[in-house]
Amino acid sequence: MSDVIERSGARPIAFAGGPLDRVDQIRIDPERLAETWADPRAQVIVLDELDPVPAEGGLLETISVTADARLVDHALLGVRPDGSPLFVSLLPYPRSEQEPVFPPRTWQIAALLQAEELAIYGGARSLADWHQRHPYCAKCGQPTEPIKAGWARQCSACSTEHFPRTDPVVIMLAEYQGKVLVGRNGRFPPRRFSALAGFVEPGETIEEAVRRELFEEAGIRVGRVDYLMSQPWPFPSQLMIACVAQAEDDTLTLDTAEIAEAIWVGRADVVKAFAEEEDALFLPPSSIAVARHMLELWLERS
Amino acid sequence: MSDVIERSGARPIAFAGGPLDRVDQIRIDPERLAETWADPRAQVIVLDELDPVPAEGGLLETISVTADARLVDHALLGVRPDGSPLFVSLLPYPRSEQEPVFPPRTWQIAALLQAEELAIYGGARSLADWHQRHPYCAKCGQPTEPIKAGWARQCSACSTEHFPRTDPVVIMLAEYQGKVLVGRNGRFPPRRFSALAGFVEPGETIEEAVRRELFEEAGIRVGRVDYLMSQPWPFPSQLMIACVAQAEDDTLTLDTAEIAEAIWVGRADVVKAFAEEEDALFLPPSSIAVARHMLELWLERS
Repeated sequence: MSDVIERSGARPIAFAGGPLDRVDQIRIDPERLAETWADPRAQVIVLDELDPVPAEGGLLETISVTADARLVDHALLGVRPDGSPLFVSLLPYPRSEQEPVFPPRTWQIAALLQAEELAIYGGARSLADWHQRHPYCAKCGQPTEPIKAGWARQCSACSTEHFPRTDPVVIMLAEYQGKVLVGRNGRFPPRRFSALAGFVEPGETIEEAVRRELFEEAGIRVGRVDYLMSQPWPFPSQLMIACVAQAEDDTLTLDTAEIAEAIWVGRADVVKAFAEEEDALFLPPSSIAVARHMLELWLERS
Repeated sequence: MSDVIERSGARPIAFAGGPLDRVDQIRIDPERLAETWADPRAQVIVLDELDPVPAEGGLLETISVTADARLVDHALLGVRPDGSPLFVSLLPYPRSEQEPVFPPRTWQIAALLQAEELAIYGGARSLADWHQRHPYCAKCGQPTEPIKAGWARQCSACSTEHFPRTDPVVIMLAEYQGKVLVGRNGRFPPRRFSALAGFVEPGETIEEAVRRELFEEAGIRVGRVDYLMSQPWPFPSQLMIACVAQAEDDTLTLDTAEIAEAIWVGRADVVKAFAEEEDALFLPPSSIAVARHMLELWLERS
């Protein structure tokens, strides 16, 4: 099954469901781009060290385009349903060099945003962050400049074009005799478990990546793999591809460098975890994570 | 449905089904990596301007590790089922700067390889090509060096690690009243049609990317989107994510910069095209392309 974002009664997937028209034609049309920038309705998203700034009603804080702002320093995210163009600045954001992989402050602020605003934020953060981390040409080492309304950079010396990265990641539940496998990374808080996950490598399908990761991390072999749903994850820029895989056996051999603990949990265990009961076997993944949706969908079906 | 690579009777998907154990633990263990390199069974794939060199029996041409070869100039692709380690050189390959997007010579040679060897080649090509095109640090502009057995590069100046790119691409058939939509890019040979496709952008799900691309390229709105299968595509390094989408209408508005022609084709049209009949409406996608598998699967089901 597919596209569960739209199944009736399901919570929206965090960072999905963005309402913007991405107006790809305007990105490469300098005249229309300049008109869009000059539109009195144009707004620029305010970011605080790449975190969102919530405004009233769960909206993103935005400001009008100021007189000294330059189009070339901004990316055109798209146009809102009411016709107002939305930009994000590509100028450096002050930020901690030691930012954790799971930034807790961002998650707390994100919870204050409406679902559609969170989706806009996710795309804006990924794009702005990519520009911050890629000012030079990986081919020749010379400086690059934003082009195509911030949707690419071009080298000033060798003209090579570079595009924002989106790294596909498989995230999966192995299933065996009515139970599913959840794991705890050593960096997670105590008792917090999630689905296992890993980057798709060159030369493999989604299904092959699922099988490889489950074997590498947990030592289990799986047969059939089914796609469930996907999520854009902006820390910094993953495409989470969620699957369920049928395990041939439940014996675990953990790669302890990746997985501190892993447990097979049944329907009752997941229900208790979601209810946050005191004697629950584990703490479930955050509601912002696709892993939470995967477990919810598994409960619905099992 | 998912994982059609394994549905009975289906042709293997080109570049999928690689037989190597990727031995990720060895990549980050210098001692075991040195042992693997010193293994008398170790082989290095021979590439000719990044093209494969077919040997007898549809195998890839390989050579033993020579006395003057250096481990640091090679990536460990993995270990074959017979225990022999397989490497690819990361040293520069002579190649044309003006390589076409669809390299016809590569496709002709690829057809000579066994399916499993083609899968090994695809991963090797993507990885070697990424190293060629990314010798400098995108963050600071200084030179980078391969680390982790060729599965990453690290900056000599700022220590930033860079990983091979895998760019997710959605490729989709829109379906409407028993017909599916196929399109012809202006760069394709005359009469050759395929499925529409486009890169997944930051901040969108797979399903959202399918909807956006079909609207941008063909002007059609779609509802339900279902995942079909995936394919690693090594020109240079895409993950093709194949879907079918239910169109709300069949009126086309083409973005002629992307799509020269698009047509709705029925079951009989696809059967004729596959049979290469003279009066066929179109030439089908190459058997190496996931679009061909998508049409085959659609015929099976429709």
